[in-house]
Amino acid sequence: MAIMKFLNSLGLTIDLAIEAHELLRGEAGIEISGVKVIKDKKDNFELTRVEILNEHGAAQMQRPIGKYITIDAPILRSQNKSIHKEIMLILSEELKSLLPLDNNRPILIVGLGNWHATPDALGPKVVDYVLVTRHLFNLNNNSLTQGFRNVAAISPGVLGITGIETVEIIKGIVDKINPSLVIAVDALAAANVERICSSIQLADTGISPGSGIGNRRPGLNKEVLGVPVIAIGCPTVVNAAIIAKNTIEMFLNKFTSSKQFYQFLKTYQEGIATLVREVLEPYSNTLTVTPKEIDVLILNLAKVIAGGITLALHESVKPENVDMYLN
Amino acid sequence: MAIMKFLNSLGLTIDLAIEAHELLRGEAGIEISGVKVIKDKKDNFELTRVEILNEHGAAQMQRPIGKYITIDAPILRSQNKSIHKEIMLILSEELKSLLPLDNNRPILIVGLGNWHATPDALGPKVVDYVLVTRHLFNLNNNSLTQGFRNVAAISPGVLGITGIETVEIIKGIVDKINPSLVIAVDALAAANVERICSSIQLADTGISPGSGIGNRRPGLNKEVLGVPVIAIGCPTVVNAAIIAKNTIEMFLNKFTSSKQFYQFLKTYQEGIATLVREVLEPYSNTLTVTPKEIDVLILNLAKVIAGGITLALHESVKPENVDMYLN
Amino acid sequence: MAIMKFLNSLGLTIDLAIEAHELLRGEAGIEISGVKVIKDKKDNFELTRVEILNEHGAAQMQRPIGKYITIDAPILRSQNKSIHKEIMLILSEELKSLLPLDNNRPILIVGLGNWHATPDALGPKVVDYVLVTRHLFNLNNNSLTQGFRNVAAISPGVLGITGIETVEIIKGIVDKINPSLVIAVDALAAANVERICSSIQLADTGISPGSGIGNRRPGLNKEVLGVPVIAIGCPTVVNAAIIAKNTIEMFLNKFTSSKQFYQFLKTYQEGIATLVREVLEPYSNTLTVTPKEIDVLILNLAKVIAGGITLALHESVKPENVDMYLN
Amino acid sequence: MAIMKFLNSLGLTIDLAIEAHELLRGEAGIEISGVKVIKDKKDNFELTRVEILNEHGAAQMQRPIGKYITIDAPILRSQNKSIHKEIMLILSEELKSLLPLDNNRPILIVGLGNWHATPDALGPKVVDYVLVTRHLFNLNNNSLTQGFRNVAAISPGVLGITGIETVEIIKGIVDKINPSLVIAVDALAAANVERICSSIQLADTGISPGSGIGNRRPGLNKEVLGVPVIAIGCPTVVNAAIIAKNTIEMFLNKFTSSKQFYQFLKTYQEGIATLVREVLEPYSNTLTVTPKEIDVLILNLAKVIAGGITLALHESVKPENVDMYLN
Repeated sequence: MAIMKFLNSLGLTIDLAIEAHELLRGEAGIEISGVKVIKDKKDNFELTRVEILNEHGAAQMQRPIGKYITIDAPILRSQNKSIHKEIMLILSEELKSLLPLDNNRPILIVGLGNWHATPDALGPKVVDYVLVTRHLFNLNNNSLTQGFRNVAAISPGVLGITGIETVEIIKGIVDKINPSLVIAVDALAAANVERICSSIQLADTGISPGSGIGNRRPGLNKEVLGVPVIAIGCPTVVNAAIIAKNTIEMFLNKFTSSKQFYQFLKTYQEGIATLVREVLEPYSNTLTVTPKEIDVLILNLAKVIAGGITLALHESVKPENVDMYLN
Repeated sequence: MAIMKFLNSLGLTIDLAIEAHELLRGEAGIEISGVKVIKDKKDNFELTRVEILNEHGAAQMQRPIGKYITIDAPILRSQNKSIHKEIMLILSEELKSLLPLDNNRPILIVGLGNWHATPDALGPKVVDYVLVTRHLFNLNNNSLTQGFRNVAAISPGVLGITGIETVEIIKGIVDKINPSLVIAVDALAAANVERICSSIQLADTGISPGSGIGNRRPGLNKEVLGVPVIAIGCPTVVNAAIIAKNTIEMFLNKFTSSKQFYQFLKTYQEGIATLVREVLEPYSNTLTVTPKEIDVLILNLAKVIAGGITLALHESVKPENVDMYLN
Repeated sequence: MAIMKFLNSLGLTIDLAIEAHELLRGEAGIEISGVKVIKDKKDNFELTRVEILNEHGAAQMQRPIGKYITIDAPILRSQNKSIHKEIMLILSEELKSLLPLDNNRPILIVGLGNWHATPDALGPKVVDYVLVTRHLFNLNNNSLTQGFRNVAAISPGVLGITGIETVEIIKGIVDKINPSLVIAVDALAAANVERICSSIQLADTGISPGSGIGNRRPGLNKEVLGVPVIAIGCPTVVNAAIIAKNTIEMFLNKFTSSKQFYQFLKTYQEGIATLVREVLEPYSNTLTVTPKEIDVLILNLAKVIAGGITLALHESVKPENVDMYLN
Repeated sequence: MAIMKFLNSLGLTIDLAIEAHELLRGEAGIEISGVKVIKDKKDNFELTRVEILNEHGAAQMQRPIGKYITIDAPILRSQNKSIHKEIMLILSEELKSLLPLDNNRPILIVGLGNWHATPDALGPKVVDYVLVTRHLFNLNNNSLTQGFRNVAAISPGVLGITGIETVEIIKGIVDKINPSLVIAVDALAAANVERICSSIQLADTGISPGSGIGNRRPGLNKEVLGVPVIAIGCPTVVNAAIIAKNTIEMFLNKFTSSKQFYQFLKTYQEGIATLVREVLEPYSNTLTVTPKEIDVLILNLAKVIAGGITLALHESVKPENVDMYLN
């Protein structure tokens, strides 16, 4: 658990359940009790279902009991649009399996994050693209809404822009429109640069407090909102502290054969967090790492997610016509 | 009342109290009972205070009892920035006179309208510029907030984008953050092209249902929100139906000396609305008229209004440093 | 020719050849010598090929000798995406028929207009969506570019933003990259509100000076640039002066049976332009009329045009995968 | 020169002359012949004038002979607007000292970088804010232009958006409008996180090929454009490779007292670049590090730079009214 302790000491979290699990298992070298993991490898992607079954698993994994599905698809970073479509369909299938049966109440899609900051704008961009229908349902014209679900969507902005906590805005809207489900889309931080813009996580537990870019997200879950929350998140950054830590560790790994170094390793362990903080002064834990082409990657991802959501929600939307329904 | 009837028959309203009054008086040629009007002409602008005193006045004026202050400043359309600043100060003074004394609860600024449509984006742009401080107040650090009021701000988007009525979003937020006042900024429709981007109306009555561009605004007032609402609105369009009607009337006016025409005028009165509808098919009452330079005019106006609000609300913001506080 | 004279007297032009022809023929009631017109009516659209054959036709039509193809599809204003696709294919077919055979030099797509003003942002939006490949060709990697043409694209902005005439910027770039063709996309002004966002004009003559919204466009044609220019334009506004004029004329038409009126009509003809100017003071000929939903209509149109261009230019792009290639 | 070699081995450069100098001197511990450096420390900032005097200095510093002025002002990262104004004035004074005397030809401001990627959007944002006057000069109305210089501005976009090299676009425009000077504004990469959004470099040498975020900038200098080029650049990112390298080095520095380590340091030197590449796979040298609040920092910087340029260029613009002239 060294890395999780390390991140916690910097006020950071591991946003992806799959990464939390990898780190826990990797370090312990043993299965984590209370956590079930099933992997399904395909040509273009790998699907990992992490299920946290009980309080012991939740404590180890530092996140609530529930299902966490991750689609790892490094090929998403290519411009191959037919693979984007394939991932969109997978996301749609997985999302469908989490949807409530209640078709009469609206579903509220929430785009978390700051539209002025490229890597944090994923949620707002998904909301821009996604099909919204609630206003048509309010016209009470069946011919318009046949084959569609009742969907509303909002990007509440971030605290620094509105002066209002996201959860206050969303809770206020939920109280007014009484949705059967909230789908919250968010940009995440990964522990590994390989996952930037290449993994999509679905969780039926909502958004945990302190997650997301800037670990400033308030909790957005059933406990707070009173309705189920599905979180869809993608890493768009890695915290610079992790880059620094990984570098030192890879460096040290070069010398594990040496007894002296092993000795050193043990004694120095605690010093790493301090060292990392020094390297990243004066920005400490607010420095994030992104690829330069992040704007293009985010646009692609936002379309994949908006398409996946739209396909999952509306019977009348089909893989062959989904692009037509995205704004 | 011919023009108000005419507009109503097309599903349109007169957004500016000053124009409603001009039209009523102009046609009747007499004072309207229950309405007090005081004008104050200066070099660069004219200030008109319309006060609706009782139900009779409200019925005639088709809007609630309350104060409506209009700053008419055609010079706002110039690029003369020192005059922009002068109007900003006037707006600030007038706004101050309407503010509540309660300094402990936040003030919520709401930017109504559609940020994707230039003439309707005035409200969202003001929210972009305006100083927001509520998150600083929540830090409980007096040195940060001394001399400032607690201000939050949001642009809720329009129904077609979110699927949620503006009033549902705002009522939800008001219930959560319990402001002492809502200031709602909106783009309006004028009855006269001369007022486009040159008049600013302040009203202590909030937003009446059916006003604004597209006359699709829900009511946003004390009755609905439970807190006082000050509306700040500027005309950014004229409905094309009014252009058509004005044209016919100016045309007819050329012939008022002729007895035959006068006769005709009387008989044709009712036909005008039908004719106007024909001219504007297939868009009927959704066609609006704007100057081509609307983007520049809106930016200027948004800065004047955001500056006026920021000056009025915060003791520490002064005319000489207000630009520094705008985003 | 009354209306063309009227518009000219206000400094305005008729941007669509089909409208110029309708007005000329309508008024004269006879064929215009030197102009060939063929119409082709389909279920969802009408195709009109106007060909100006000689100088006489050019003088009458107030535009250069050449081909002007108009797709009139009022159904474009609906949100029916499969019809959008149908129009995209038609546009693509028509554009193909105008393309040069030279495949070795790049094609430069130019998005004219002001991205800050919704109805004028059509060109820049098309450039945002359209597939650009020239940088891939410069990598000299055949596997990347097989089946594609070499395409560059730019939105030069407008004079008020850059201080530079569009033609100076484009001529400068043309001199550097030596394209075989320029495709210039522009928002136009229509003479009839029914054509707003429902007609697309292709012209092999380029952009004539003084056309477009704000009739401030410089000429962008073979004479100026030294390479052929295909113009793709859609009306997104009607000049308010035309609304005013149409209103008066429809009004007068109600009374053509009356001898007195006919008499009057003849005497008043000249006064109309003056009257219209009065109605539209102080904005005179810069007032434009747009539907309120212009932002949505422009986005749809931009996708149809970007898709049509992308399909026409690249062999490897097919109707079933074109959406994947748009940004 | 180890770090410069290291960066070069990753295809990266040191954009700031002051950092190149610090690194060279730091490592050599001696003065660099052919380079003159004068520092001037004030309360809120430090001014460093690096002058490369001859070919020897140029070779060492890996950049052309010329003047490089850096304003280091970490306080720029605060929201203290009166300090922003102070830095704006300093920038303006320094820029003035580099301006040509020729007042008759226009000055062209070029905003380099990608407006879709927050840390790279500095140049385009400066162009958005800066005062443009060339179109007014073309009206030949002295009363409009008295006290102002003739200024044009453009953001050419990046290769991936247009398919055209920036230098092709700018050279094309320069050939057409014949400016006396180009001022190119660009986002840079720093070698030290402390300089992100806190340093501004002015250079009379223009933009060297390979500099800037993504080290994809073409050269934009007198040799290429035929007119003098002043470059204004601010670091908005640090390359992640540098973070990784700095971490290892700080780590190693902890053990310099140990003889064994010193030995190791010498043998491992070459391995670091390989190691860093491994850590940053699969993104290698395209990963950049930015603070999360980069959007706000960039907006502040863009205003400081646009204000500094506007003040320097126009006699009629004064510190007390400069905000009025920014868009």
